[in-house]
Amino acid sequence: MDKQKVDILISSSVWDPKPWVEGLSKSDLVGNIHVWPTQADLTNVKVLFVWKPLDKGVIDLIPNLKWISSLGAGVDHLMTDPQIPEHIPITRIVDPFLARDMTNYVIMGLMMHQRSMLRHLDNQKSKTWDRITYKPLKVGVMGLGALGGHLAEKLVGLGFEVFGYSRRLKRIEGIKCFDESDQKEFLSHAEVLVNLLPVTPQTVNILNKQLFSSLPKGAYLINVARGNHLVESDLINALDDEQLSGALLDVFWEEPLPPSNPLWEHTKVTITPHVASVTTPNSAIALLLDNLKRLREDRELLHTVDLNKGY
Amino acid sequence: MDKQKVDILISSSVWDPKPWVEGLSKSDLVGNIHVWPTQADLTNVKVLFVWKPLDKGVIDLIPNLKWISSLGAGVDHLMTDPQIPEHIPITRIVDPFLARDMTNYVIMGLMMHQRSMLRHLDNQKSKTWDRITYKPLKVGVMGLGALGGHLAEKLVGLGFEVFGYSRRLKRIEGIKCFDESDQKEFLSHAEVLVNLLPVTPQTVNILNKQLFSSLPKGAYLINVARGNHLVESDLINALDDEQLSGALLDVFWEEPLPPSNPLWEHTKVTITPHVASVTTPNSAIALLLDNLKRLREDRELLHTVDLNKGY
Repeated sequence: MDKQKVDILISSSVWDPKPWVEGLSKSDLVGNIHVWPTQADLTNVKVLFVWKPLDKGVIDLIPNLKWISSLGAGVDHLMTDPQIPEHIPITRIVDPFLARDMTNYVIMGLMMHQRSMLRHLDNQKSKTWDRITYKPLKVGVMGLGALGGHLAEKLVGLGFEVFGYSRRLKRIEGIKCFDESDQKEFLSHAEVLVNLLPVTPQTVNILNKQLFSSLPKGAYLINVARGNHLVESDLINALDDEQLSGALLDVFWEEPLPPSNPLWEHTKVTITPHVASVTTPNSAIALLLDNLKRLREDRELLHTVDLNKGY
Repeated sequence: MDKQKVDILISSSVWDPKPWVEGLSKSDLVGNIHVWPTQADLTNVKVLFVWKPLDKGVIDLIPNLKWISSLGAGVDHLMTDPQIPEHIPITRIVDPFLARDMTNYVIMGLMMHQRSMLRHLDNQKSKTWDRITYKPLKVGVMGLGALGGHLAEKLVGLGFEVFGYSRRLKRIEGIKCFDESDQKEFLSHAEVLVNLLPVTPQTVNILNKQLFSSLPKGAYLINVARGNHLVESDLINALDDEQLSGALLDVFWEEPLPPSNPLWEHTKVTITPHVASVTTPNSAIALLLDNLKRLREDRELLHTVDLNKGY
């Protein structure tokens, strides 16, 4: 690729594109920045940044497209979009702060459960001094990638007994790891189950009735990956049957979670609005510009997505 | 000391002495276990375990006393008791799980503050989807002993910027440490201030108006050390003036916290009933028996308290 400035198209239907445009335009690697929807001629655009989903027909307007990046860690919105050509490299944001923030959010949720924090908050309202006891909890982490692996490692450092699950067996020091062939045994240990799996056809609806029944009775669920990992009605049944004692959910099939969704009012469910870990434009832009430099120099892009694995 | 079994007196006005008696009696180092109050002859008692405070005159009934241990980490109840003879060694429980539990509780409180968790819980009640943003927080840890040092180290590992304060300067990797001469500068960094100081005449009431005014505006206080570190009325004023944005309090001048105390109802205060870190009899008994063995063998006791420092 020649060394001239590179034109970019940003399609961000969820986030305000302004900070991205401002941040990227400071780099002398960057030429024109277009923001979708636009009537401009996109013939010179070589790079597409997307968060998410992409309108139909956009790809057809960018005949010279060389690279697509998600603006977040997730790429499921690109994986499932038939207009994305197979020969274009796709990358995602692997933000070091993303793993930190995710880990710290999950630890918060885990500790709020272990320490019965919601009961303490209720007790404060009635001025009740009740020294509820607590016990150590075994934590199962599903998904041992950039986020799950980081979480598992930090949990061990904080003194938790940690069990890890991934499709293909991984080795992480201090963690008992399991793969698909041992999923049931993994689940039998998980007094708290944290889902950080990628979204693939194999993992959609993985948090279902059958999985819940393999957990120890009274287990607690933390879902911070994607809403479509979870069969919501199965969760509600498992909570009502006391197979699960509670759940912290940060992600949902439909976001914002519609007011009609019964999860809002379930007393054993805690809801946060997809805030466990949020990529800030500043840290993501540094990674995007690094890859842009690599693109211009015909070097390998960082954090490319494997279309076959789906993540 | 000869190798015969050792008689013990337990005085525990707060905790049920039963699990302690049961656990200790399993050891063949242990002879008779008396529980205060008792009419029994205590002439043969060599060891006193106390949680707290000790009734007046108890010491006079134990003429052959060789060792006193607190049943918890705190020894302020012994330090301030004039009946305790100066020549008797005093020890405390340094429970490895105590530091773990304290650290994890503080991280929970810190994250609940950073992530506006109380607002999210309120938003859930009104089915409001509000993706409140968050930012990194600088944490100041006051007291860098067994608990504060452990906390500071783990916070660094989780990606927090950490400032440490102790009476005499300490060096901990990754942490900017300050001593008494630099207290004001230390405080100026602490967007979250965690108190884990020991109770000494110098630290009673240390969390007061003047200290709060040295913190960045909107700072958050976590007090997990002792209630008498805090001037409660100064805290309420600092919250009402918005110098502080909130506080998580686990310890109080009077416990249980009386219903008349205005802290219960303050909307910026979160109260837990002295549960941040609780010594379980099992882990403490192992430490007590280790020291009992040392006493019988005339070896140095572990975790003795320095009467001059007061901790």
